[in-house]
Amino acid sequence: MDYVFSNRIASLQPSIIREILKASSGHNVIPFSAGNPAAETFPVEVISSFTQEILTQDPVAALQYGVTEGYSPLRETLKVQLKERFDMGQPQDDLFIVSGAQQGIELACKVLCNEGDTIICESPSFIGSLNSFRSSGARLVGVPMESDGIHIEMLEQALKTEKNVKLVYLIPSFQNPTGITTSLEKRKAVYTLAKKYGVMILEDNPYGELRFKGTDVPTIKSMDDEGLVIYVGSFSKVLSPGLRVGFVLAPSEVMQKMVVAKQGEDVHTAMLPQILAHKFMTEYDYQGHIESIREIYRRKCTLMTEHLEKLMGDSITYTNPDGGLFLWCSLPESVPMLEYCKTAAAKGVAVVPGTAFLVQENEPCNSFRINFSTPSDEQIVKGIEILSTV
Amino acid sequence: MDYVFSNRIASLQPSIIREILKASSGHNVIPFSAGNPAAETFPVEVISSFTQEILTQDPVAALQYGVTEGYSPLRETLKVQLKERFDMGQPQDDLFIVSGAQQGIELACKVLCNEGDTIICESPSFIGSLNSFRSSGARLVGVPMESDGIHIEMLEQALKTEKNVKLVYLIPSFQNPTGITTSLEKRKAVYTLAKKYGVMILEDNPYGELRFKGTDVPTIKSMDDEGLVIYVGSFSKVLSPGLRVGFVLAPSEVMQKMVVAKQGEDVHTAMLPQILAHKFMTEYDYQGHIESIREIYRRKCTLMTEHLEKLMGDSITYTNPDGGLFLWCSLPESVPMLEYCKTAAAKGVAVVPGTAFLVQENEPCNSFRINFSTPSDEQIVKGIEILSTV
Repeated sequence: MDYVFSNRIASLQPSIIREILKASSGHNVIPFSAGNPAAETFPVEVISSFTQEILTQDPVAALQYGVTEGYSPLRETLKVQLKERFDMGQPQDDLFIVSGAQQGIELACKVLCNEGDTIICESPSFIGSLNSFRSSGARLVGVPMESDGIHIEMLEQALKTEKNVKLVYLIPSFQNPTGITTSLEKRKAVYTLAKKYGVMILEDNPYGELRFKGTDVPTIKSMDDEGLVIYVGSFSKVLSPGLRVGFVLAPSEVMQKMVVAKQGEDVHTAMLPQILAHKFMTEYDYQGHIESIREIYRRKCTLMTEHLEKLMGDSITYTNPDGGLFLWCSLPESVPMLEYCKTAAAKGVAVVPGTAFLVQENEPCNSFRINFSTPSDEQIVKGIEILSTV
Repeated sequence: MDYVFSNRIASLQPSIIREILKASSGHNVIPFSAGNPAAETFPVEVISSFTQEILTQDPVAALQYGVTEGYSPLRETLKVQLKERFDMGQPQDDLFIVSGAQQGIELACKVLCNEGDTIICESPSFIGSLNSFRSSGARLVGVPMESDGIHIEMLEQALKTEKNVKLVYLIPSFQNPTGITTSLEKRKAVYTLAKKYGVMILEDNPYGELRFKGTDVPTIKSMDDEGLVIYVGSFSKVLSPGLRVGFVLAPSEVMQKMVVAKQGEDVHTAMLPQILAHKFMTEYDYQGHIESIREIYRRKCTLMTEHLEKLMGDSITYTNPDGGLFLWCSLPESVPMLEYCKTAAAKGVAVVPGTAFLVQENEPCNSFRINFSTPSDEQIVKGIEILSTV
């Protein structure tokens, strides 16, 4: 049979990162291309003992169908913590649980965008989100990143001239792929523009807890008096990504539509992971655990940047992030980036070509993304050595 | 802010069943409205010990990111078992893991249907699927059910006259909501029509293992030499619905697109539940466990039908299913169905009005769905007594 696919899917390609991850897994390749949390950050013993408790004390809660909005105690705990720690959540907001932040991102697009509607995003931006928007049939417009966040004048220009803009998608803290943190001033400016043009903001904050330098910048959601911001968070980087638990804080009216859409996608998020996340937040030293993760990433990031500086400081530029998992390295114009990445892979180091993160993959780009959370310390040292010889 | 939602979502309402479930949970209502497996079927002890083994022997596999296609050993085991036990799977097919069968259904629609394209479904049909199709913007056309499955002549008429038909959606075994099993003859006829009109079949088989009477009828997928059938299965009714693990067997080319779409929805299905499902299939008496579930449902269904016959046999008609979880009861024309359901709820028995399962909720319908897996034996007896007095 000749299969004819929907327009939104027909042209979509698998994520380059996922494909690279698949191709390099199990092989002898240094995985600078990945975005996995360091396995040493997983609190295995406490997950194991909590799981036993759950399956002994209330197995039916963990194994039976649940409601689409998610496990109530987890929702309540998150609402309280987001308010107390980050001043997020107004009376008009509500929170529900998703199967990883990716689902929150996809649902926001699904409920707000018709096919052909526009989403403005940072350029470069997270390929997983871009592909998710594409598979909903949204049209993407990229606005360049500067060292302190999205280019504000160009954002306003896009809001003014592009048709049917429904969302501005941002990763304000330790952005993927650049590692850049948007300044408070720019966060305020983005919010003001969204209000002015009546467009919602999708604030994606998977790395927010992973600050290992400097001080927190308030989230855009914490400024949201008008109900303009859909905020997406995740347990993937602080507990475990394999459990697939994230959450969405959004105006109730928007949340209700997202819940209906989620119902049609997976009914609800797996219960055992939700109950685990709740116990992790309430019966464990959550703050101490996060501090230990920050310490690990502080060490790994420093190791990587020190070696980059020593071996490649003269030839490339790179971001020096205050948190998160990624560095963004830019080659001199004379070096063809895709060739460089291919040669690096052939020499045993996988990095992600910067073009993967663009709205149009054929735009000029001389950068690549590297990750310091997945490789071991030894691999970081060896990998940078290899990159310096490419 | 005045929120403007996408066309596909704006008109969508939450599933009536889910809402009833929410409203009746924790209250003193007899839950004939639910579709939950009996909690006594959950193999709690073995899930608990398997979980311990997983988190001791290979915690990183359970907690780290996985590939979108799913946990390889589970995929391989399922492929072998589906082939050996049900003769399903041709060289052109492949299998991947989804976060419950619902996701497989949603993805099939997403990759094949543009907004406005048509899906033909049985009428009545499973409301979760209908709402999922609606939230993708598909147009639904219902074809009436007969006692041995979909009305074949009317199906052909619909295939001939409806525009842009992309899928025929069927639940051939112990259908939700009717409990009807499509005859082998009709399965063959549906397949022949799909081939003739070049339309794919979405075969949803969540209850296939729950036969407690009679002999298995071959799946439509087992006849699929032409690569026309997307087959969706689930662990929800044989292991646990809260774990959210299902699978899709489909032509590889279609599966690849579904995997790309899944990537944008939840990256991958939670790993711990996938590894649990694999251990359940390979290190446990899977067949013995299924036989014990069948025994429970045989008893519960018999209890329900015996009491129905005794107390209401003169006033209503009902299906007598060979498996699954549901009975479909039809009132005499003189009794207004919605009034009946409301009065039943007021008297403490929740049933689902048949209109919930129609493509157009305002079509005439004098039936309601009742479930025998969720209520206790006592509740079944008491609930039927109450229904007989309404």
